[in-house]
Amino acid sequence: MSKVLQNGDYPFKKVYDYILHRIERKEWKENDKLPSVRQLADEMNLHRLTVLKAYQLLKQHDKVYVKEKVGYFVKSNETNNLEYLDNPIVSAYVQKNHLSEIHQSPVFYNFSQALIDPNLLPNHYFSDYVKKVFDLYPKVLSTYSTVQGDIELRETLTQYFINQYKTHFNADDLLITSGSQQAIHIIAQTFIKPRDIVLIERPSYSAAIDTFKSNGAQIVTVDIKKEGYDLTQVEMYMKQYKPRLFYLNPTFHNPTGYTVSVGQRKKLVELAEQYRCLLIEDDAYHDIYFEHSPPPPIYTFDTAGTVIYIRSFCKYISPGLRIAAVICQSPLMKSLITIKSLVDNGSPLLNQKVFLLYFSSLRLQQHLEKIRIALQIRKEIMEEELTATDWQWISPKGGLNLWVELPDRIPTELLLTKSIEKSISFVPGQVFDPFKQLSPWIRLSYSYANEKQLRIGVKRFVEVAQSLSK
Amino acid sequence: MSKVLQNGDYPFKKVYDYILHRIERKEWKENDKLPSVRQLADEMNLHRLTVLKAYQLLKQHDKVYVKEKVGYFVKSNETNNLEYLDNPIVSAYVQKNHLSEIHQSPVFYNFSQALIDPNLLPNHYFSDYVKKVFDLYPKVLSTYSTVQGDIELRETLTQYFINQYKTHFNADDLLITSGSQQAIHIIAQTFIKPRDIVLIERPSYSAAIDTFKSNGAQIVTVDIKKEGYDLTQVEMYMKQYKPRLFYLNPTFHNPTGYTVSVGQRKKLVELAEQYRCLLIEDDAYHDIYFEHSPPPPIYTFDTAGTVIYIRSFCKYISPGLRIAAVICQSPLMKSLITIKSLVDNGSPLLNQKVFLLYFSSLRLQQHLEKIRIALQIRKEIMEEELTATDWQWISPKGGLNLWVELPDRIPTELLLTKSIEKSISFVPGQVFDPFKQLSPWIRLSYSYANEKQLRIGVKRFVEVAQSLSK
Repeated sequence: MSKVLQNGDYPFKKVYDYILHRIERKEWKENDKLPSVRQLADEMNLHRLTVLKAYQLLKQHDKVYVKEKVGYFVKSNETNNLEYLDNPIVSAYVQKNHLSEIHQSPVFYNFSQALIDPNLLPNHYFSDYVKKVFDLYPKVLSTYSTVQGDIELRETLTQYFINQYKTHFNADDLLITSGSQQAIHIIAQTFIKPRDIVLIERPSYSAAIDTFKSNGAQIVTVDIKKEGYDLTQVEMYMKQYKPRLFYLNPTFHNPTGYTVSVGQRKKLVELAEQYRCLLIEDDAYHDIYFEHSPPPPIYTFDTAGTVIYIRSFCKYISPGLRIAAVICQSPLMKSLITIKSLVDNGSPLLNQKVFLLYFSSLRLQQHLEKIRIALQIRKEIMEEELTATDWQWISPKGGLNLWVELPDRIPTELLLTKSIEKSISFVPGQVFDPFKQLSPWIRLSYSYANEKQLRIGVKRFVEVAQSLSK
Repeated sequence: MSKVLQNGDYPFKKVYDYILHRIERKEWKENDKLPSVRQLADEMNLHRLTVLKAYQLLKQHDKVYVKEKVGYFVKSNETNNLEYLDNPIVSAYVQKNHLSEIHQSPVFYNFSQALIDPNLLPNHYFSDYVKKVFDLYPKVLSTYSTVQGDIELRETLTQYFINQYKTHFNADDLLITSGSQQAIHIIAQTFIKPRDIVLIERPSYSAAIDTFKSNGAQIVTVDIKKEGYDLTQVEMYMKQYKPRLFYLNPTFHNPTGYTVSVGQRKKLVELAEQYRCLLIEDDAYHDIYFEHSPPPPIYTFDTAGTVIYIRSFCKYISPGLRIAAVICQSPLMKSLITIKSLVDNGSPLLNQKVFLLYFSSLRLQQHLEKIRIALQIRKEIMEEELTATDWQWISPKGGLNLWVELPDRIPTELLLTKSIEKSISFVPGQVFDPFKQLSPWIRLSYSYANEKQLRIGVKRFVEVAQSLSK
């Protein structure tokens, strides 16, 4: 009988997952001897009891067996096979989510998750806000949200955007989604049919590439560089291919960190209107700037209704809530709402009300300041540790990642395998490329690991890379 | 500038929506005089200040204008048009969600929402559980869930199902989704490509019909009656059409309330295996029985992995959380998880932890008992008020609805319009029919309105219907 795991069990769960994952990836094969409890505890800097608990659960779950006075061994078990089994009944039409698979590897030096270290988020205050939600809205858990999203929240966010950018719209032009991934999914469902052409930056957010492909889109790529796009090329593509939409992330771009100029933003809107191509502006990193706030979003230059704007607040407000806002003009919005009603019939009301309270608080602004400072420090630590190499990168002015070009002599795929063995993760550039090339590039996130893990982890990572380039 | 609405504003928002909706539906046309504040306050049994607030906001939003000492009038405004405007940029591929549109009408005698009255749910206790979540999991808001769902929650639910039905599976065979609508959406995304054939009951859950259609499925219907299905017909269709899947709701079926026998359940599994057709079993109403618990789910008879089981807990545990479990065997599950990663990358962690705590509590069982009794009383009140008519229905043994057959002389569509004018809603049978016929049938939910509203509302509804059949 499985017992309910308590909060204090988290480190033990991590060890459990760490070992299980290596077994499933066949890094330890059937009947291989696992590290001893002492060895693993030392290596992971954990208490031996924590490691022992993990081993015991693995034994209980039939993944390992014990030889008295010798140690733990991998048990033979056919269901350890992670490969896709043939579905005996029906085959599935499934496009892989490449980024999601890399994130499955639990490691200690995590440079693959473009997420903010939970310790940097104001967890204690969240708790207060949630309690307050129940005082204000006693029936919040027994009520569904409307499909479009809680009206209070939409009005608050609308007012926020109007104040920030002096644009004119109202709460009807805003849709609440369960994070930006869902927003991208809904937009793809609404506007893409198989063989439609879609413009995507190269490189681009991996899950967006996978989403558009899974809707049958044909991808045409637009290079993004430090200076932005080649707008002559963009115009030529719009004329030639008549794409339905152009999905872009022009502010602290993921993975490159580049930011596109105001001049280019205005020109893009003109082109979109002229060639009847929707612009899908994904702006998840907007508030994560170091020195200066970035240029206004592309949608603020939109008049003809060519832009659909996605602003996720997940990264730095609260990943556990999953709240994003989608802003667009009325005819487009009605279609999105209909699709939203089919994908989940409305985001949970509790999350929206908790988010509303926190978003409306003074504490948010203060905390955002602290996060910016903390992230800038972490970026600088990562960059310091990389100075010893001849690797190339442009230092970003915001966001969560470094986009680093490795010299040719370092083989990226082998680097990934060897790094994971050393409990370090990163994302190879080809994951962000629809053509699956870009292999000298890698994305290193500095936002998740703490300062100590950054120093040790990046040092080790450089050592691993150098050991491969002999 | 829009002010942030507080909890006490809810009645005024209802009035606002009520009036705006009628204006948009053109029940009041441009320059028509609206009811006076006093009239509306009397009719809705609200304070005049509440109604006045609503009128003032409508005026502020340019929907109405005032003639001093005369009253409020509908303002001429092109954006009042609720019809789909031509999208000047890009057209959308959007299948309407018919049920969702009917629910947009705010009324006082609500017999269209198959939801449980929020006053019947243990709101006060929910609050305690949420607070406890933060004590146990302080970082819950700064952490993402895994794509498949929180392991603690999956293990708890797995243990629950194993205890209930003595079936063998583990937490890897269970996926957490944000409600059953999302589960249906993910299943459709995974297994349906355009022109695939899908079996659906007739009548069936409307949003499921719309979902499969929006994935390009061709629908073949299987009649469901009090005795269940005609299995000879089902076998013939499976042989002839080779459908990918059969979506069914065999326990307290929505909208009919029928429950399919154990014998039929076993036979369906045999047919599914023989003809390689997935069974998608939607079991949202399982625990809402009045006298006896229903037969075991179809999936408990599954051995070859032909069944995907959806159990939503939204209706009676907490709509505001949106938690459902999907259970199926391993090859199918891996595909579902990949699609889940693309549709939202994992349900919010907060909701899963709150649900976990409440689901594991003793209080849940006690409350479920109370809900069953309360719903049975409400069903009986509705049935009492309908006895005066010659309308036909089978009294359900569980669930939230009556499925009523009206005599031919009553025109259903006109009945809907007239009912909404009297602030009464229901769902016409054709919404549940892929062929959009079934017009003498209507679904009346007894679960949302309170006992007093049931008595008054059903009486009025009968009067409206009788007035139309002269």
